[in-house]
Amino acid sequence: MSGTGRVGVLTGGGDCPGLNAVIRAVTRKGIEVHGKEIVGFRNGWRGPLEGLTMPLDLDAVENVLDRGGTVLGSSRTNPYKEAEGVERIKRTLEENRVEALIAIGGEDTLGVAHGLAGEGVPVVGVPKTIDNDLDATDYTFGFDTAVHIATEAVDRLRTTAESHHRALVVEVMGRHAGWIALHSGLAGGANVILGPEQRFSVDWVCDWVMRRFERQYAPIIVVAEGAVPEGGAEVLQAGERDAFGHVRLGGVGTWLAEELSQRTGNESRAVVLGHTQRGGTPTAYDRVLATRFGLHAMDAVAEGDHGRMVALRGTDIVRVPLEEATAQLKTVPLHRYTEAQALFG
Amino acid sequence: MSGTGRVGVLTGGGDCPGLNAVIRAVTRKGIEVHGKEIVGFRNGWRGPLEGLTMPLDLDAVENVLDRGGTVLGSSRTNPYKEAEGVERIKRTLEENRVEALIAIGGEDTLGVAHGLAGEGVPVVGVPKTIDNDLDATDYTFGFDTAVHIATEAVDRLRTTAESHHRALVVEVMGRHAGWIALHSGLAGGANVILGPEQRFSVDWVCDWVMRRFERQYAPIIVVAEGAVPEGGAEVLQAGERDAFGHVRLGGVGTWLAEELSQRTGNESRAVVLGHTQRGGTPTAYDRVLATRFGLHAMDAVAEGDHGRMVALRGTDIVRVPLEEATAQLKTVPLHRYTEAQALFG
Amino acid sequence: MSGTGRVGVLTGGGDCPGLNAVIRAVTRKGIEVHGKEIVGFRNGWRGPLEGLTMPLDLDAVENVLDRGGTVLGSSRTNPYKEAEGVERIKRTLEENRVEALIAIGGEDTLGVAHGLAGEGVPVVGVPKTIDNDLDATDYTFGFDTAVHIATEAVDRLRTTAESHHRALVVEVMGRHAGWIALHSGLAGGANVILGPEQRFSVDWVCDWVMRRFERQYAPIIVVAEGAVPEGGAEVLQAGERDAFGHVRLGGVGTWLAEELSQRTGNESRAVVLGHTQRGGTPTAYDRVLATRFGLHAMDAVAEGDHGRMVALRGTDIVRVPLEEATAQLKTVPLHRYTEAQALFG
Amino acid sequence: MSGTGRVGVLTGGGDCPGLNAVIRAVTRKGIEVHGKEIVGFRNGWRGPLEGLTMPLDLDAVENVLDRGGTVLGSSRTNPYKEAEGVERIKRTLEENRVEALIAIGGEDTLGVAHGLAGEGVPVVGVPKTIDNDLDATDYTFGFDTAVHIATEAVDRLRTTAESHHRALVVEVMGRHAGWIALHSGLAGGANVILGPEQRFSVDWVCDWVMRRFERQYAPIIVVAEGAVPEGGAEVLQAGERDAFGHVRLGGVGTWLAEELSQRTGNESRAVVLGHTQRGGTPTAYDRVLATRFGLHAMDAVAEGDHGRMVALRGTDIVRVPLEEATAQLKTVPLHRYTEAQALFG
Repeated sequence: MSGTGRVGVLTGGGDCPGLNAVIRAVTRKGIEVHGKEIVGFRNGWRGPLEGLTMPLDLDAVENVLDRGGTVLGSSRTNPYKEAEGVERIKRTLEENRVEALIAIGGEDTLGVAHGLAGEGVPVVGVPKTIDNDLDATDYTFGFDTAVHIATEAVDRLRTTAESHHRALVVEVMGRHAGWIALHSGLAGGANVILGPEQRFSVDWVCDWVMRRFERQYAPIIVVAEGAVPEGGAEVLQAGERDAFGHVRLGGVGTWLAEELSQRTGNESRAVVLGHTQRGGTPTAYDRVLATRFGLHAMDAVAEGDHGRMVALRGTDIVRVPLEEATAQLKTVPLHRYTEAQALFG
Repeated sequence: MSGTGRVGVLTGGGDCPGLNAVIRAVTRKGIEVHGKEIVGFRNGWRGPLEGLTMPLDLDAVENVLDRGGTVLGSSRTNPYKEAEGVERIKRTLEENRVEALIAIGGEDTLGVAHGLAGEGVPVVGVPKTIDNDLDATDYTFGFDTAVHIATEAVDRLRTTAESHHRALVVEVMGRHAGWIALHSGLAGGANVILGPEQRFSVDWVCDWVMRRFERQYAPIIVVAEGAVPEGGAEVLQAGERDAFGHVRLGGVGTWLAEELSQRTGNESRAVVLGHTQRGGTPTAYDRVLATRFGLHAMDAVAEGDHGRMVALRGTDIVRVPLEEATAQLKTVPLHRYTEAQALFG
Repeated sequence: MSGTGRVGVLTGGGDCPGLNAVIRAVTRKGIEVHGKEIVGFRNGWRGPLEGLTMPLDLDAVENVLDRGGTVLGSSRTNPYKEAEGVERIKRTLEENRVEALIAIGGEDTLGVAHGLAGEGVPVVGVPKTIDNDLDATDYTFGFDTAVHIATEAVDRLRTTAESHHRALVVEVMGRHAGWIALHSGLAGGANVILGPEQRFSVDWVCDWVMRRFERQYAPIIVVAEGAVPEGGAEVLQAGERDAFGHVRLGGVGTWLAEELSQRTGNESRAVVLGHTQRGGTPTAYDRVLATRFGLHAMDAVAEGDHGRMVALRGTDIVRVPLEEATAQLKTVPLHRYTEAQALFG
Repeated sequence: MSGTGRVGVLTGGGDCPGLNAVIRAVTRKGIEVHGKEIVGFRNGWRGPLEGLTMPLDLDAVENVLDRGGTVLGSSRTNPYKEAEGVERIKRTLEENRVEALIAIGGEDTLGVAHGLAGEGVPVVGVPKTIDNDLDATDYTFGFDTAVHIATEAVDRLRTTAESHHRALVVEVMGRHAGWIALHSGLAGGANVILGPEQRFSVDWVCDWVMRRFERQYAPIIVVAEGAVPEGGAEVLQAGERDAFGHVRLGGVGTWLAEELSQRTGNESRAVVLGHTQRGGTPTAYDRVLATRFGLHAMDAVAEGDHGRMVALRGTDIVRVPLEEATAQLKTVPLHRYTEAQALFG
């Protein structure tokens, strides 16, 4: 299709630092190099479903590089669960003269993109997962920022732990993979690191805690929100749900701090970092990675190389089939946790 | 007393960024200017009670200025609740040839200092309250750091709130005074600020939340941990206590987020900043204030001006009677909250 | 005057973190509380001279609180040096139905404001000086941010100095007053602090440097850009001027590092922080102070209390006559430098 | 060799954030997993030359993870330029019962290590180059921190540039490779990026500057210290040397700002970041990478796999021959600069 066509962009799923950097790079590369017009779709897949658009010119993407969140808004809307979803999207793209769509999002968003590609919609994906649990790419933007924020928190909590001779549990993001826990734990000098990949023994945690106290230091335990003790999730206060029926965040960290208090006789406390990990200005690393993803995604569009997703391999940006986005969850290999134990005591 | 005497230092109560800066300034000024020897007492009042000391020379206070926590350790031990507490302290001071003691701490620590001063112990106080709720001084160190950290969190959460069209509640420190909530709320551009000084109406909060959504922005609510809704603390999940019988932190923020979810139909979330606010490297402001407090406290000791506490008034460090440390809680005047409402909508 | 009038705002002189926070507070308080319309004048006094305006409504001041610089732009234009300057300003105000003007700026900008007030223009001032050298107020916004940035630099440079056993000179802002040098020097643990208030002896600096090396530590010297060695400014490379005839920044720091290299035989290096100190996001402290200044300036306008300037005294915002803005330069009292020497060795 | 032997560690060359993280990981892994004793050699190769040692046990590496610099000190001493250098090193290692040596450093340090390995000294290398210009590894620690600091500076300078409609030149590190310029330029949204790989045309820079001004924005130019204009280095003030005969840093940035001032008529300014880029606390990314390097280097020692260097390939730590450390300078491919131009205008 000719360079006079328009290219659409949308962001789906959870907030992630770097989304605006991708949008900016896509927009600038499209306009400045490939002579495209760029149109933003608002609120994830709801945008093309309902025809919610936002013009993206050079001025629109000034001053967004260092901003968290997404200027396009996001949602978890799935067009495959909407009546005539695919047809409505095709119609919107046609009405807006959109020759190709760049979809920035995680497993769900890219799963939809993959589906649409199979039905002839020209789509290119940009992977986004703050948990870094996508096997098709070495890293995704947002992850470094989350690790940075969690590490700052661990740094700050360490002096409190030391001053009060107290164990502190820090609960970080990571439902299915412990990458944020592993990296922020390594960077913060954590004395125990617990991920969701393997059930943990509270006795084993207590052993490290006591060893640390015996050395006259205070322990910091970094635990992923998805970590589960031996005995299973039922051991946690599994019944607690919020007004919308979602299981409350913060379960495992708070639970573990109380277990440690009871078993060691030393008053432990938990801090649940929660949403602070996913907002705000991206780190330089994430801005660079997100910018490179955006530049390359637009190149793929310009080359008509649809049904693909950009990915980081080593220091290169490559293209992989969109289906790889959802093929395999990348969890932390257990030997990485074992290796980290040299740093615990 | 001659310059050959020794001066003791201790830190009591909760962790607070800037404690090490005070210790460093006391030590350096004592040694370099007044020709004193300095001896640290460990773990608050437990130090002089049990004779736990730590030598403080110039090398000992290198590299501590930018460190959070306290190299002396802390505790909440109250010698007036210990058998022969005062006598034991007097004995320790005598055995260590300590001519005067500098006590760095909050209401409790300085209350003990005031009591000891009344019994002839030469003591000078340095006020420490991260909540900034001490009437005798304009500001105390640690407060600016806590506000800085809470503001960074609000900054980060704003982009998440906007991207997801969601209300976020940020619970900050402040049991009896709302200074951290007020300042971090002003600095972060909060859309509602709630302190402990006045019971708040959830309906009124909902009004601000809805107004914000109507303007197509997302609201951030900053609430002090000590804030109480109309109806009183029983309205909160007052029954929840941890393994040590302490009421759980995080009550009001989490409760309010759920109330907002139910009443507005918009999914709200709470983030409880907790201990991250009180650890880690102090801001430049707090390092300067803490350093000035330390220098002046040592001057007071050198001049034999005991029973006094250093305080900030405008840009000057002054001395006030130790009893002022505990005389009056400095809460936020209600007109300060009213004034802030111009910035809410 | 009725609430239907319009209030003008402008920012003059050099960049300073917090300007946007003042603009935001003025705008919101004017609209939400006092029912005013707010009009921004662009590029300092050039705005009212040439009728360059920018509407300021609630949307215009969303997302500016944490932004450095000024959304209104700035300039050093002085209407008293322009033909019919005052008349043109009066005409612009009339044409734009501006009942009162809030001028945010330093000595020059507020000097003009004072002059205009004397000629019947209803004007209220907000003081801005990143150097903190205005006697009428305890502190001004921007200063804390500059100190914060300079302190971070000193923190970073310390480890380099230590690792390489090298003296490092850090040149900070401060043409006529050494407040930034004093505060960042205290906060960063500098081993010599040099301000413009008193000529310094290089021999004396060398003594401190050698003492520090003898203790097996490396020295950091913080020097204000306006500091002058004994012998006077001619000693520096006074001839060097840039393309516009301005004396080059960075003179004294670079000069001092070379003097130290030659005299001590230890290779010293200088870092000139320059403009990094005056841009970017304001600290929480500066955001709060700037916001309070803005709220109170609008109150003064609403009360018709013209010819006044807002100022910080202790913890209160007060109003002082505009002429105080230019009356007296607030330099660092020499005893403050002497006091700091306890921390040098 | 048995686990009862001792392992030596040294750090050579310029300061770099993450050195202490390597030392800590080496020490902890050696003691906790491999049952080694660890001995530090002070001040680079001077340590083993002169027998300057420092015991490294678990306590020695507490609280160093987040510290910049190196607790071992550094130097640029080259034993091949010292009389009987190799023999003296062998003797020191023998006297200290050191079975293997871990050398952390850049091209020079690892070149010596490679030479020693050829003479039978069991040595393992850890690569360190803040400029990221080593071909054998994807990234080295310290680089991310330098980029982070440079990006923060660009962020701060942008608002100043915008407020004053002025071009700002930021000179960053990079003598032979422009990686820091490229990454901080991409992350900071620079409007021109200049590296040492290719001579730059000032006219071409002026074109971008003017285009930016025409769009009503202000330009930021990021230039590597090693960048050279057409016409060659003589065009710069090449004569200027400091007291030790070293060419002064800051040449190209300051020169370029003056050229831009003269050619565009718009007053431009330069900021030379200098040493601030290489000191202070490492980013989380660098702490993780440095820690992994340290862990793996000790594994290589334990396995007797000498003459090797650890390196990052994708997400894996691998081992490569030590000679690769000096084989090939990794410069920025020119297409990476071209690609970035889409983001300039």
